[in-house]
Amino acid sequence: MITPKTLKGFRDFLPEFMLPRENLIERATKVFRSYGFCPIDTPALEYLEILQGKGSEETDRQLYKFEDHGGRKVGLRFDLTVPLARYVAQHFSELTFPFKRYHIGKVWRGENTQAGRYREFMQCDFDTIGTKSIVSDIEITLIINDLLERIDLKSDNSFTRFKIRVNNRKILTGLLDKNNISDKTTNLLRVLDKLNKIGKQAVSNEMVEVAGITSRQADQILEFVLLSGSNDGMLLSLQKMLSGNLIGEEGVAGLAELVGAVNAAGIPAERVVIDVSIARGLDYYTGTIYETFLDDLPNIGSVCSGGRYDNLASIYTKQELPGVGGSLGLDRLISAMEELGMIEKISTPVNIFMPYFVEGRLGDYLTFLRKLKLSGIGVEFYPESKKIGQQLKYADKRGFRLVIIIGEDEFQKGTCQIKDLRTGYSSEISQVDAADKIKEFL
Amino acid sequence: MITPKTLKGFRDFLPEFMLPRENLIERATKVFRSYGFCPIDTPALEYLEILQGKGSEETDRQLYKFEDHGGRKVGLRFDLTVPLARYVAQHFSELTFPFKRYHIGKVWRGENTQAGRYREFMQCDFDTIGTKSIVSDIEITLIINDLLERIDLKSDNSFTRFKIRVNNRKILTGLLDKNNISDKTTNLLRVLDKLNKIGKQAVSNEMVEVAGITSRQADQILEFVLLSGSNDGMLLSLQKMLSGNLIGEEGVAGLAELVGAVNAAGIPAERVVIDVSIARGLDYYTGTIYETFLDDLPNIGSVCSGGRYDNLASIYTKQELPGVGGSLGLDRLISAMEELGMIEKISTPVNIFMPYFVEGRLGDYLTFLRKLKLSGIGVEFYPESKKIGQQLKYADKRGFRLVIIIGEDEFQKGTCQIKDLRTGYSSEISQVDAADKIKEFL
Repeated sequence: MITPKTLKGFRDFLPEFMLPRENLIERATKVFRSYGFCPIDTPALEYLEILQGKGSEETDRQLYKFEDHGGRKVGLRFDLTVPLARYVAQHFSELTFPFKRYHIGKVWRGENTQAGRYREFMQCDFDTIGTKSIVSDIEITLIINDLLERIDLKSDNSFTRFKIRVNNRKILTGLLDKNNISDKTTNLLRVLDKLNKIGKQAVSNEMVEVAGITSRQADQILEFVLLSGSNDGMLLSLQKMLSGNLIGEEGVAGLAELVGAVNAAGIPAERVVIDVSIARGLDYYTGTIYETFLDDLPNIGSVCSGGRYDNLASIYTKQELPGVGGSLGLDRLISAMEELGMIEKISTPVNIFMPYFVEGRLGDYLTFLRKLKLSGIGVEFYPESKKIGQQLKYADKRGFRLVIIIGEDEFQKGTCQIKDLRTGYSSEISQVDAADKIKEFL
Repeated sequence: MITPKTLKGFRDFLPEFMLPRENLIERATKVFRSYGFCPIDTPALEYLEILQGKGSEETDRQLYKFEDHGGRKVGLRFDLTVPLARYVAQHFSELTFPFKRYHIGKVWRGENTQAGRYREFMQCDFDTIGTKSIVSDIEITLIINDLLERIDLKSDNSFTRFKIRVNNRKILTGLLDKNNISDKTTNLLRVLDKLNKIGKQAVSNEMVEVAGITSRQADQILEFVLLSGSNDGMLLSLQKMLSGNLIGEEGVAGLAELVGAVNAAGIPAERVVIDVSIARGLDYYTGTIYETFLDDLPNIGSVCSGGRYDNLASIYTKQELPGVGGSLGLDRLISAMEELGMIEKISTPVNIFMPYFVEGRLGDYLTFLRKLKLSGIGVEFYPESKKIGQQLKYADKRGFRLVIIIGEDEFQKGTCQIKDLRTGYSSEISQVDAADKIKEFL
């Protein structure tokens, strides 16, 4: 006998966890498609060379890698960005650009497991490749908005209380450029990262000591990072601060156009806010940067992030491939929705249960069920004519809402009993118009 | 520069292949759910011990296996049945039985690549675990029927021309048992498998020589395997042939109840046919066996197969877990649909394209697009205000159906031009009721 167990850091999904995940993915897919984004898929296994091409030491250490049957060095993908870069380079002549794709799939990282961290998890990425137009940055913002707005898993519940924080990498670049300290970017970012931990004064000192800038420069950088206010106010301050520096002005203009257009499209002004402190991937992104926070659960971090990059696939192709995109944190979002009571605890994909009551009437039950099905009503039928009590206990455990009971009496009369398991309400209706009645009822 | 390439036997999915696959999966999911089947998921990586537990030499040779960072021997799952068995044994106390699940996921086999064979492919399994009731066998038959009926990817096209061939393992068992040659089952099956290749006489001779049965017995087995006719006729012949043998009679009764109930449920009688020659997994299945063939493409083989088994997880648990299920051959079905012209060649998930015509009007375009979106109409908007000819060329390449054009004139008048790219029909409509007009049009 072998003990049935999963590997550390890996998990099985029981129906009650899988149903909300599948629902969420379905809704996200609809949003992507409504903007003309196409699904793609790539293999779980890639040549190690491809995966290590641009990887850091950390991703390299976390890689699941081995030799396959043909002696090839292979690995499991650790994100969907490297496969996208490889894909676009490989199929360049078969694709039409701008190429808009979404990709929902598993990735693997052999990292140390901790609370909420898994070695296998699902990623959900969306990107527009092949254009530098700010219109694509705006579209990504609209998609993030729609994703959060439309993934209401309970019918009358949706995320309206969220903020998409936007920044533009060019603003920091411009600021450092204007001060002639662009060469110190990496060191400065490392120090700035400690702001929440060690405080303003210590950061200022350290910037002077470690990065070798003047204290006036350090203060200006701090003033910049701590800027806050309305979008209009922020834009004014930034314009003033960066005036005369071409790249900085470009960054400010990009943000101005983005928030303006997003508001014109009808998104509430308070939902897309300029925040120069968000520093996600400042070493990777080159333009717009996004992070998305839930007002009610700010501490869980960003649930949808992304940004613009200059060149996706420079290690695979000479084609310059600028792009912009985002990544929806499915698992984080599901945890948040659970915490906010936005997920119904159900373990059945249909609302209706029908016990198998009269043994000799199987054909009649099936005929009735088929009629309901052709009207679009799904029903779970119990496969054994056990005692009715046992079958109802099963129904209760599974969490059905409605039970349809047809006993010999009802067959004779051409009726059925329907019973709401939550309210206890029950009623006898004709089998002929059962479909309509049940639809009304649900 | 690294050459962007995929591993041999692995493939990328371009949008035009991915869209039908995603559509097919969505429709299959709806069918499973309408019968109360729940989604589950399991890890791609499992302990090697789990995967090898019941595997044959062949699966063992094809396994992608390696040592992970913690020195554990692991492998990529090669099917969804072993993970199901492990899952049900491991979560036995958390699940409610009968447990009905579907599982759509990738599996990996390092087999020799040949036409149409891949080392990574998608499986789509559905099973009911924990009941011996024939009602579950009937339900699986209905699901197979619905899967084939409802996956019409073109609106007015569906598979009505298909046959679900059913057999019952107990019938052959009964026949051999009645002849006191059950101990020769494996050898006999091996010889019978050559029937199409070497013909009736050679098979008869070989059965006598290799399996050591009498020629009278050989003739009876051949007569049995070649039986054909209507379901009623078949049932009569089988009853006669197996009369007095308990297990054989059980098999015939099971088939009789299955075809009777399925017809009662409203499935045309000619669609579910008894065929004692189908021998899928006769060494694995213990009751009902299914295979499904398309009338128009019989040679591609079964597109949906399965059967009943006595005990799913005997190597992981002492719990007896009988079950019945099937597996939809997604890739085979998509190939078939392509061959039958049932798949529209499109590479866009929305029908409508809108060029970016007047540069200064971005906000107005976005406002209009948002209004359409809130009415449920998805539109792809071109992100660059390039020459209109270039944008329309893109639209044409991508295969959109409708183009909405708004130039400065139209903005002034509050109208838009809509143009059907297939028929050339065009019309100028008011922006205010554009949503309704476009819905009518599509």
